[in-house]
Amino acid sequence: MTVEHQPNAIDGVPGSAMPIVHKLSKDHDLVLKTFRLLIADLCQQFNGGHPGGAIGMAAIGVALWRYVMRYAPHTPGFFNRDRFVLSNGHTCLFQYSFLHLTGYKAMTFEQLKSYHSDRMDAQCPGHPEIEHEGIEVTTGPLGQGLANAVGLAMATKNLAATYNRPNFDVVNNHTWCMIGDACLQEGVGLEAISLAGHFRLNNLTVIYDNNQITCDGSVDLTNTEDVNQKMRACGWDGIVRALEQARSSKQNPTFINIKTVIGLHSSVAGTAVAHGAPFGAKGICDMKTAYGFNPEEHFVIGDSVRQFFQGIPERGEQWVQDWDQLVNNYAIQYPDLATEFVARVRGELPANWQDHIPITFPDKPTATRTASGLVFNPLAKEVDTFMVGTADLSPSVNMIWPGKVDFQHPGLRTTCGINGTYAGRYIHYGVREHAMAAISNGLAAYSPNTIIPVTSTFFMFYLYAAPAVRMGALQHLQIIHVATHDSIGMGEDGPTHQPIELANLYRSMPNLLYIRPGDSEETAGAWIAAIAAKQTPSIISTSRQTLPQISQTRRDGVALGAYVLSEAEAANVTLIGVGAELSFAVEVAEQLKVQEGIVARVISFPCQRLFEKQSLDYKRKTLQRHRGIPAVVIEPYAPNGWERYADAGICVTRFGHSLPGKAAYKFFGYDIDTLTKKVARYLEQIHEDELLRGEFVDL
Amino acid sequence: MTVEHQPNAIDGVPGSAMPIVHKLSKDHDLVLKTFRLLIADLCQQFNGGHPGGAIGMAAIGVALWRYVMRYAPHTPGFFNRDRFVLSNGHTCLFQYSFLHLTGYKAMTFEQLKSYHSDRMDAQCPGHPEIEHEGIEVTTGPLGQGLANAVGLAMATKNLAATYNRPNFDVVNNHTWCMIGDACLQEGVGLEAISLAGHFRLNNLTVIYDNNQITCDGSVDLTNTEDVNQKMRACGWDGIVRALEQARSSKQNPTFINIKTVIGLHSSVAGTAVAHGAPFGAKGICDMKTAYGFNPEEHFVIGDSVRQFFQGIPERGEQWVQDWDQLVNNYAIQYPDLATEFVARVRGELPANWQDHIPITFPDKPTATRTASGLVFNPLAKEVDTFMVGTADLSPSVNMIWPGKVDFQHPGLRTTCGINGTYAGRYIHYGVREHAMAAISNGLAAYSPNTIIPVTSTFFMFYLYAAPAVRMGALQHLQIIHVATHDSIGMGEDGPTHQPIELANLYRSMPNLLYIRPGDSEETAGAWIAAIAAKQTPSIISTSRQTLPQISQTRRDGVALGAYVLSEAEAANVTLIGVGAELSFAVEVAEQLKVQEGIVARVISFPCQRLFEKQSLDYKRKTLQRHRGIPAVVIEPYAPNGWERYADAGICVTRFGHSLPGKAAYKFFGYDIDTLTKKVARYLEQIHEDELLRGEFVDL
Repeated sequence: MTVEHQPNAIDGVPGSAMPIVHKLSKDHDLVLKTFRLLIADLCQQFNGGHPGGAIGMAAIGVALWRYVMRYAPHTPGFFNRDRFVLSNGHTCLFQYSFLHLTGYKAMTFEQLKSYHSDRMDAQCPGHPEIEHEGIEVTTGPLGQGLANAVGLAMATKNLAATYNRPNFDVVNNHTWCMIGDACLQEGVGLEAISLAGHFRLNNLTVIYDNNQITCDGSVDLTNTEDVNQKMRACGWDGIVRALEQARSSKQNPTFINIKTVIGLHSSVAGTAVAHGAPFGAKGICDMKTAYGFNPEEHFVIGDSVRQFFQGIPERGEQWVQDWDQLVNNYAIQYPDLATEFVARVRGELPANWQDHIPITFPDKPTATRTASGLVFNPLAKEVDTFMVGTADLSPSVNMIWPGKVDFQHPGLRTTCGINGTYAGRYIHYGVREHAMAAISNGLAAYSPNTIIPVTSTFFMFYLYAAPAVRMGALQHLQIIHVATHDSIGMGEDGPTHQPIELANLYRSMPNLLYIRPGDSEETAGAWIAAIAAKQTPSIISTSRQTLPQISQTRRDGVALGAYVLSEAEAANVTLIGVGAELSFAVEVAEQLKVQEGIVARVISFPCQRLFEKQSLDYKRKTLQRHRGIPAVVIEPYAPNGWERYADAGICVTRFGHSLPGKAAYKFFGYDIDTLTKKVARYLEQIHEDELLRGEFVDL
Repeated sequence: MTVEHQPNAIDGVPGSAMPIVHKLSKDHDLVLKTFRLLIADLCQQFNGGHPGGAIGMAAIGVALWRYVMRYAPHTPGFFNRDRFVLSNGHTCLFQYSFLHLTGYKAMTFEQLKSYHSDRMDAQCPGHPEIEHEGIEVTTGPLGQGLANAVGLAMATKNLAATYNRPNFDVVNNHTWCMIGDACLQEGVGLEAISLAGHFRLNNLTVIYDNNQITCDGSVDLTNTEDVNQKMRACGWDGIVRALEQARSSKQNPTFINIKTVIGLHSSVAGTAVAHGAPFGAKGICDMKTAYGFNPEEHFVIGDSVRQFFQGIPERGEQWVQDWDQLVNNYAIQYPDLATEFVARVRGELPANWQDHIPITFPDKPTATRTASGLVFNPLAKEVDTFMVGTADLSPSVNMIWPGKVDFQHPGLRTTCGINGTYAGRYIHYGVREHAMAAISNGLAAYSPNTIIPVTSTFFMFYLYAAPAVRMGALQHLQIIHVATHDSIGMGEDGPTHQPIELANLYRSMPNLLYIRPGDSEETAGAWIAAIAAKQTPSIISTSRQTLPQISQTRRDGVALGAYVLSEAEAANVTLIGVGAELSFAVEVAEQLKVQEGIVARVISFPCQRLFEKQSLDYKRKTLQRHRGIPAVVIEPYAPNGWERYADAGICVTRFGHSLPGKAAYKFFGYDIDTLTKKVARYLEQIHEDELLRGEFVDL
């Protein structure tokens, strides 16, 4: 059952809701007042930031950091620590202040006071960032953190089911997630809630800071649903008496709906004004006076408040030692398992992982989505590091290895008879692309490279997932996204499913590898590059349709981003082929020679980002534009960005068309005759009009 | 209350669920059998498509098209028609077949049989497309249609509240939406459900084709929530007895949860195999035999089945005539209102709309988000065509005009005291960016240009909305998206809120204008261009921070995409300035002259797409690259695509940084000194290394 609490009703203490209140010393009131004034001062000093939410949640924070959560400020990376996610990331001062008070070394008082300053090395950015001590995931775009928390809880479940043994719970941490009203409105949050209920993640507690205020005013301007009923419908438990009970919830994830007052005790308490602007000098002065504080003093943390948080680092170190001892004993009892577990903790793959990747492929036309399965599934079968999910496209993405077990609550009995366990590593995300990617961020954020999440769906639907793909790139998380149906060649599903502009997003996105392999060999190269990218997510972009095997492709060429597929002396033109259309470039080169007497060299160009990392010398040798050989790129995507590498492009600047794949190609002029003529005509054109040489020409 | 129906239990007829069954002739069974075999044959002929869902929903479709919906096949654009949305668009044969059977002229039998053929002018693409008769919105990406339907129902509510008078319900149509399991999983669907419940849209009926099958298997692999309870929690009514009652539901939107059997009566009935592949010749043969049909015959629609649908076009024309008469009488009683209404029906703005746009602006630094309000709010105040929404960023986006009234159920009483009516035109979407854009597609799709929806949020959150923005562009819908905080200059919120790569998505997206105005004057130009684009959505991308007014900017320059801001004889370099950083280019040109003796011309480049529409001559005259003057673009976004217009770029290829705006600019080298030095150094470099002239250089 989900029950609403009113913690602020009893002077800001989560009163009847939490029996832990009896533990609170007489200093508790002072702690809360100090905390609230600290937040107010921190926002006031540089006249910016979000004070209201942090102040409203103060009592919840004290309960969590002082009593409830298990963590180690002096060993922030403690593997079995509880994870805390601030999904309403704009209230970051809430977290920063507790990090400071509980003794995280990086969060010095000086650093805390750098919030909204122009200090370049600040630990206090406007939203929590994973790079900093004590922060589990970067949050800010609303709803993401909630989905990340689901991923973190799934990581615990999977590792626990895989490695725990009787009396050896080497992984049993809990995940705590604070959310605001918005996280319950955003689709990604709603998708994640639905999945967490389905997976019955009883190691996840979501605490709803129910202050009923958003930027526009009261939440009932835009949301009048019965949130408790909705959460129950999604398979969540509520909790009546204490946060501590949430840890021992036996069946389901826990939702705690706590009524708070935004900007409590300030002059703007309970209003939207408290959300995103400081209270002003007068407002803070009044608040301090009412609290019995000296209004002339700022950033005051009294000794008794410091004492209130004393001993937390030591408590944490004890937990760390206990866990180390547990793992040592585990290694004695289960040496092989412990070796594997320790490697996972370190984020290491088995040294021989590449041995599982095929050296050769059957010499027959093969879709790269099929090749992707040939490359990866043997590896996924053997190496537990990979957790593989799909947004309900199992039959299309070919990610099922023999004997794969689903990640499911072990008690689930499905209608179709396919069940699983928490040790399973194949995840049915449902048609929830955004949550799939955001949950994968959580899986990856659990501990560096301990889990490498793999997602899969049609390429076009990575637009649904894009905000979470971005968050993965921003956080330097290794995640591998496998996209199929990546061009108009996918055919009949039509323009809603045919990507034209999407690659441009991902080619522009920092710290992401967008890779379009051209055949099976390059698909092997794409996987090797993606697995080698320990701090970078990748998208492996594959074809629905079969593609010929091209004899000159090289898997190690993929790592270079682009490479010469066929060189030619005295070439008239360079053709740039990419992914599903690479074979077109090869065939056009043939036909140019035979029919037009034009000598074309061919480059395969699977990944712009990897090519950019190469030396200027390599780039010039590959492209040969400095020798005056014009380059023509052939790719049925928007051309934007190819202008860097090519002089002309046979690209697409309109939406697709519903036709069978080959007919769709023909409709857009991607048949060998038309392509050949366009290239030949272009070479004439630049002879006729020299100016065209300095411009990118759309053919 | 929401009740599950079992229409297939009674031989495919929505039996006890629908009293209309008593109206059904003895041919009803034959109609259903014919329909199902037709679908099976249509998928079989070209060996592709999605038969199962369409077959499972057959009885629902018969009820809707034969008895329940009000529409006019021979006047498909009938303004007051019921709208039908097939959110599970892959079952498009369901809709196509009923369009054919009910007499839509474009959907000839030949056309129907072109499904999955390579016929270029087919009316039967793989998903419904708005271009074709009888299709209200393009669907396919799941969840979108459901949100579109919410928008269509809101359009009706708004127009009805604005124009209906006692005895003159000139707008009172109903919106019907079929959804599959996936639409209840996708975040955009869940966001839209929540809003529809909040708005109490009793003119919306959502019919859930509850076949419990998705591509991966049974739905309970990934969803075990109590969907009826969830819908009730979101403020939806269920319906017990008849679809017809849904039209008269008095309080809330209606959710009808109908248990169906995917691929009913086929050998793969009730399994995932029925979803996305034809049944095979043998399977269809068996089905025909069991039904008493001749297995040798294909695409059989018997006379009695044709007769069953007879009279529907005539019935529709009667409705059209009745409505025309109603509007004529309305024009007598309410001449002014009728004039306005008829203009809205025609999609015409008042001829003088531009008079509301300011000619000049205060000569003081102004954020373009502020300028956007100055430009648009007077127009929004006067012209009812605009429905303006925000994803909970009212204080940031400045879209509130004096006296604005919220779009709300008139009975709503909010805590903050801001209430509204259905005639209101300001929409609080909540923190639901994706639904905001998808619902706006529905508002716009109601009838061409009758409503021009405006959305607003931070630019970065248009990544959440991107799949729906794309659907608007694909459907040629005029929607204006107002994005603020569009560069690192937005400051402290940090990298999660600072766009780097997002503009590249929208600059690459077909049929979309992404416009970055540089000051107030250009903001006027951006609005004028967006309002002029009757079949194209626009994003007006504005700054959080104040920007200087630049004396040479011209609103008519925006329509050209790019224009010369300051010309110079014998220029050494062209500087391309864009949007929030346009003034940097102007200042750098000054400093280059003063400090380095370098002559720079400056181009303002607010919109690549509009520039591409200009003549080659205009482009060359503007850029002057053909005269050997190198061009340097200054924009703190990923450079991808600028290579077409520039030889070098001062761009950003990493994620942002949380710092106050000016400090963030400085951190990334966007201060006048650094920029000036980079340009000067580049000009030296290309003198030293001639090869660099042929390459795009990142400065």
